[in-house]
Amino acid sequence: MLNRSVYASVGKKENTTGIAKRVAHISVSAIKQMPVLASKVAGCVSLGQGIPSFSTPSFIRESVIEALRHDDTIGKYSLQPGLPELKVEIAKYLQRVKGVTVDPETELFVSCGAMEALAGAIATVIEKGDEVLIPSPNYSSHIEQILFAEGTPVFVPLIEKEGWRLDIDSFRNAVTPRTKAILLCSPMNPTGAVFAEEELRSLAQVAVDLNLFMIADEAYDFLVYDDLPHFSPASIPELKNNLIGCYSFSKMYCMTGWRVGYMYASSRIIDQVLKVHDAFAICAPTISQHAALAALRATNGRDGEGDRFIHHLVASLQSRRNVTCDRLNTLSHIFSYQKPKGAYYVFPQIVVEGLSDMELALKLLYEAKVITIPGSGFGPTGQGHLRLSFGASETDINKAFDRIEEWASRF
Amino acid sequence: MLNRSVYASVGKKENTTGIAKRVAHISVSAIKQMPVLASKVAGCVSLGQGIPSFSTPSFIRESVIEALRHDDTIGKYSLQPGLPELKVEIAKYLQRVKGVTVDPETELFVSCGAMEALAGAIATVIEKGDEVLIPSPNYSSHIEQILFAEGTPVFVPLIEKEGWRLDIDSFRNAVTPRTKAILLCSPMNPTGAVFAEEELRSLAQVAVDLNLFMIADEAYDFLVYDDLPHFSPASIPELKNNLIGCYSFSKMYCMTGWRVGYMYASSRIIDQVLKVHDAFAICAPTISQHAALAALRATNGRDGEGDRFIHHLVASLQSRRNVTCDRLNTLSHIFSYQKPKGAYYVFPQIVVEGLSDMELALKLLYEAKVITIPGSGFGPTGQGHLRLSFGASETDINKAFDRIEEWASRF
Repeated sequence: MLNRSVYASVGKKENTTGIAKRVAHISVSAIKQMPVLASKVAGCVSLGQGIPSFSTPSFIRESVIEALRHDDTIGKYSLQPGLPELKVEIAKYLQRVKGVTVDPETELFVSCGAMEALAGAIATVIEKGDEVLIPSPNYSSHIEQILFAEGTPVFVPLIEKEGWRLDIDSFRNAVTPRTKAILLCSPMNPTGAVFAEEELRSLAQVAVDLNLFMIADEAYDFLVYDDLPHFSPASIPELKNNLIGCYSFSKMYCMTGWRVGYMYASSRIIDQVLKVHDAFAICAPTISQHAALAALRATNGRDGEGDRFIHHLVASLQSRRNVTCDRLNTLSHIFSYQKPKGAYYVFPQIVVEGLSDMELALKLLYEAKVITIPGSGFGPTGQGHLRLSFGASETDINKAFDRIEEWASRF
Repeated sequence: MLNRSVYASVGKKENTTGIAKRVAHISVSAIKQMPVLASKVAGCVSLGQGIPSFSTPSFIRESVIEALRHDDTIGKYSLQPGLPELKVEIAKYLQRVKGVTVDPETELFVSCGAMEALAGAIATVIEKGDEVLIPSPNYSSHIEQILFAEGTPVFVPLIEKEGWRLDIDSFRNAVTPRTKAILLCSPMNPTGAVFAEEELRSLAQVAVDLNLFMIADEAYDFLVYDDLPHFSPASIPELKNNLIGCYSFSKMYCMTGWRVGYMYASSRIIDQVLKVHDAFAICAPTISQHAALAALRATNGRDGEGDRFIHHLVASLQSRRNVTCDRLNTLSHIFSYQKPKGAYYVFPQIVVEGLSDMELALKLLYEAKVITIPGSGFGPTGQGHLRLSFGASETDINKAFDRIEEWASRF
């Protein structure tokens, strides 16, 4: 997703003279390098980026059009922590869906997407010398955010064979006097794992026992398949003072480009993170906050338009997940995989001897014209895997697998 | 602009246990404290916050409505450095207005307002031990951004009596082996100064001679009164490798709430700052980029709708500046001031013996119901001044001064 110049640095040494270490030591991840390489290959089909094919629903867009026509405050700064009426709807939503009682005035703020909330949280509680426990594999942006804060990511391998389960003992054993936080995304990017209530309660107990912050990235919290339950760390009252929950409107309402999300934490933490929010953003885009307000009102309200949209979205993505798994089943000589329970990623292991994830991703790109993301960018245990997104339409997913099968028959 | 909880910290010790030093040592500025105190006083008139009374013009809003109805990409992530067509229009604009030739693909990126560009620039080139030269008084958010990057702001007093002129010798004398950058805003918040070409060329020479970064905040670059010229450091070719220019759509098109601006710098710097942009924002809001595109097309295009809007805006604000100065003239027993040449701020000195800026601001708030900002928050030489914004309507400006005069007659 970066531009030509950044990608000139692929295979070229950067000139970091005069650049702060916190930035110089971040490397541009493979997630962003692959689309740039792909932009030079005509006619690709993408299983790469995590952008679903759906548009922002019209009930949200029409509400924004109404505000553009009739609300003179639509173009002006909102209050720095967000529109008060939006924060009230967020609190209602959290109460209804996660069973947590939130003070909208002091325990929430509206951010420029979950990314700003996460980056702000990490910059607020992590500094040089601090260690952050994260699962491996893990979303590469979390790694960048920890490095930006000059912290050290400590990778705790997931148990792949048991569906990318959390290994609580390994988390506990990885704790040192420098451990400051645990960072977790569930449903998870890149594995599609959804951690069970029991796993999350055990990990929360580690955080409470050792007084660690628990930073939860819940961007995909609504997106769980096969009617499995989703359990949120926000639902654990004992964790309240340690929890920093980061949420997004991007995936639930197909609003990735609007850049609006929110943070739920104790008022003490919100106060501190708002300093970072003030320095980087002033406020989340007011127009996007109006869109989020329309989305939540349609979801919290009686007519259920928001819920119907979400159900349809989950059902569509479940169908795409099923197509993806069916197609992977016929490629068992190349991939072995754990069936995703949530999000829209699958993270198959490459079973071909001696074929690295980068080699395979490049072969699929240049020989099959299919974009995939090599797993190495997601932490040490990502090696030997590819991340495939099934956000694309079923037609595109099938086209991509047709090409992979055709390529595999020649391989 | 913060919430109840943050302002509970006014006069109360914060609990910063476990908070990173980069955040713990930022204090919430008076600019943001005053509106919160004011929110408890009914019926205030504000000369406080820098938000002009105008709405985003309808030619921009109608173009966004069109995109919401007919463009399916409006709700999706843009490319991380921004919409390519927007970057092309920005390059055209910079060529036309500042006479600088910019490669839109490698030397620009679109940010979540000038604030994100500034915070990202500072986090990219400043780290612990680095000193940043800034004028005093200075916009308080710059100070927060430097502290966030663990740099040291070094305040170089402006020459108030000569219209808040730059003191180039003082800048040169303030340089130490740890000096890394000069940060400058022109037209300036909070003084309304507009630095002359000669001043800026001299300061740029200091940056080039000593290989310092020059970070330019040009959020008000269009807003200069009395047909004075505006000179941009971007117009100095020798400065190119040292310059990081930060620009905004917020003030020029009354788009404060849209959170969209941009950075112009060498491709080497853009590459590095994009890492921070990726970690904090992913991309600027796509819908706001569409709004910015409509704004610039109307300005770069032949029919001149954008230019007409800007001329009308500048004329209106010049009239408000004149009203403000007229009213200040009748308060010469309380204030002495330098007439603003740009932006929409005046920074009068309090000439009443023994009356501090905080005392006066609180008296005006509680006894006259007029919101002003005490000068101490703008650096050491801000003491003994108030910042007054003349972004409000002439009716409100006159109402505020009526109240101040009435209060002064009793004082």
